[in-house]
Amino acid sequence: MINQEHLKDFLPGWVFVNGDSGDVAFSSRIRLARNLKGFPFPSYANEQQLAVINETVKQALKNKSDFGLLEFKNIEDLTPGERLVLVEKHLCSPQFIENPRFKTLIVNEEQSISIMVNEEDHLRIQTIMPGFSLENALLLANRVDDFFESSLEYCFDEYCGYLTACPTNVGTGIRASVMLHLPGLTLVDQVKKVLSALAHIGINVRGMYGEGTESYGDLYQVSNQVTLGRSEEDLANHLKSVCRQVIEQEKAVREALLKDSKVQLEDKLCRSYGILTQARMLTSQEALKLLSDAKLGVELGIIAGVNVINIRKLFFLTRASILQKMVGRELSPSERDFYRAKTIRDFLNQV
Amino acid sequence: MINQEHLKDFLPGWVFVNGDSGDVAFSSRIRLARNLKGFPFPSYANEQQLAVINETVKQALKNKSDFGLLEFKNIEDLTPGERLVLVEKHLCSPQFIENPRFKTLIVNEEQSISIMVNEEDHLRIQTIMPGFSLENALLLANRVDDFFESSLEYCFDEYCGYLTACPTNVGTGIRASVMLHLPGLTLVDQVKKVLSALAHIGINVRGMYGEGTESYGDLYQVSNQVTLGRSEEDLANHLKSVCRQVIEQEKAVREALLKDSKVQLEDKLCRSYGILTQARMLTSQEALKLLSDAKLGVELGIIAGVNVINIRKLFFLTRASILQKMVGRELSPSERDFYRAKTIRDFLNQV
Repeated sequence: MINQEHLKDFLPGWVFVNGDSGDVAFSSRIRLARNLKGFPFPSYANEQQLAVINETVKQALKNKSDFGLLEFKNIEDLTPGERLVLVEKHLCSPQFIENPRFKTLIVNEEQSISIMVNEEDHLRIQTIMPGFSLENALLLANRVDDFFESSLEYCFDEYCGYLTACPTNVGTGIRASVMLHLPGLTLVDQVKKVLSALAHIGINVRGMYGEGTESYGDLYQVSNQVTLGRSEEDLANHLKSVCRQVIEQEKAVREALLKDSKVQLEDKLCRSYGILTQARMLTSQEALKLLSDAKLGVELGIIAGVNVINIRKLFFLTRASILQKMVGRELSPSERDFYRAKTIRDFLNQV
Repeated sequence: MINQEHLKDFLPGWVFVNGDSGDVAFSSRIRLARNLKGFPFPSYANEQQLAVINETVKQALKNKSDFGLLEFKNIEDLTPGERLVLVEKHLCSPQFIENPRFKTLIVNEEQSISIMVNEEDHLRIQTIMPGFSLENALLLANRVDDFFESSLEYCFDEYCGYLTACPTNVGTGIRASVMLHLPGLTLVDQVKKVLSALAHIGINVRGMYGEGTESYGDLYQVSNQVTLGRSEEDLANHLKSVCRQVIEQEKAVREALLKDSKVQLEDKLCRSYGILTQARMLTSQEALKLLSDAKLGVELGIIAGVNVINIRKLFFLTRASILQKMVGRELSPSERDFYRAKTIRDFLNQV
């Protein structure tokens, strides 16, 4: 069922690379909210205005090779399933595809840049990098931002900074986030304590798919709340130092578990791996939990002969929309559970 | 850890052979209770009398080659661990080893004959055969019984038949039993209904280790209750026809599950197999449950590449006393769970 050549169609680019602290940090992301001067925010704009905004942004990037080959996805041209794949690949927000009119998603070849046109703001510039690498993501985001600023006029106020549809984004319009995999802290029942402490210092914690989504597979998106009154670099650095601490805590817990409860840990993680390689039906939630265990097991050297990148790929390949794209048709919930288990078995046995 | 050559020391002989209806019937057993004339029953006999009984039976069998090479195990000479191994191999009852004075267990090479001297009765002749083969077990038991009768005088009453310590055994002194593996009936929640119906027709159902033991691993010992007023053949035939029906019901349920709920069944059984091949800690109870699933999976062709005889061996190799004998020392409960899981992994990967 899995055609290795087409894997890139189903997976975010950063999944293929082991970044810095890749055992704890899946990916680092910068998102900048920008608006064009002279147009209402998308939710207040009429169709004609939205069409002009959409065209203006596209034209600005046409024939530009600074960011390699760019793909322009007209959301209206996509099937609902294809739109969901973009969300599950983290290339756009769930909100972006709700109403597809005059919306374009612009993505570079490595999928490190994705630009949403006419989401909540006219422009949402997103850069995403493997592992713990907020600086690199910020550098790339700034390059895209500078490029747009050279040809388009942004909505900018000397006192407030960049003006955005939602007041929480006013200022730098930046949201920096790191997707952390915290199975160790979860196992010792410390994850809630650690993460809720972050709220007091202006840090937000969310599930794998952003606002309002639950955390499955021990994955957490950690991001800054404040965007006003501080520079992009300040905000990114603050998040960076907080995440560095969480990463160190997770690593320390993993070491301690390996030292103090080796057999119990091996038992738990190997059982999960045994189920993964044998189950015939897996819900999305169970699959993520088992994959989380398997990833930890591989990283701690408990499970041998498995490439951790393949486990990371499966976190995405087992998403409903991606499964449906691979199978080539819509699937009922029980069919999804069947193909999810089959994909995992095929993948763990084959690669 | 497992030395294949010594497996016979740890396993009942019938485990190595696929008997008739071996997928449902583990083994068929005949037990005859006999007492020698002129001596009180063991619980009323003094030490001197017990010693004479013990010696008399041993002498009767010494230099007799009708039953091949016989081993005479003086229970008092064995360590508590070695005694438990005999129980867990089903060669003697748990009661037999409680007080080891003047007790001998006589076993033939294939372990199809085991004779307890000075259990509840002077003689308990047990024959055990692989699969569903009560006739063969009865033929062999009768041969042993006839042999003893030719040289020893039994306690026999023309009206009552053989006299025994417990009134329930008076008459033929026979207990016929079949060990049935009923995972299908258990899965469809019918096993209690089917088995409790047997009580009304004079059939007893017990767990794997006889009276008062619970059923683990979906194994049930089905035996006759009545021993008075009917011939040995009648009693064995009655049990045989009852067991034949239960076996057919179990087979029908397995077929139906395979036809109507294939994926769910595959999922359940393969998950169990996945855990068996990966777990690092397994309690006795969980191991038996998982082995039961794995055996069913292999028999239904769902789990490939595994010899069902190996699964059957593991039902015994994972017993506490046998584990301890293999490891060569006493084990704490958590050490047992560790070595139980290791034995299963080694065995499933190696053989």
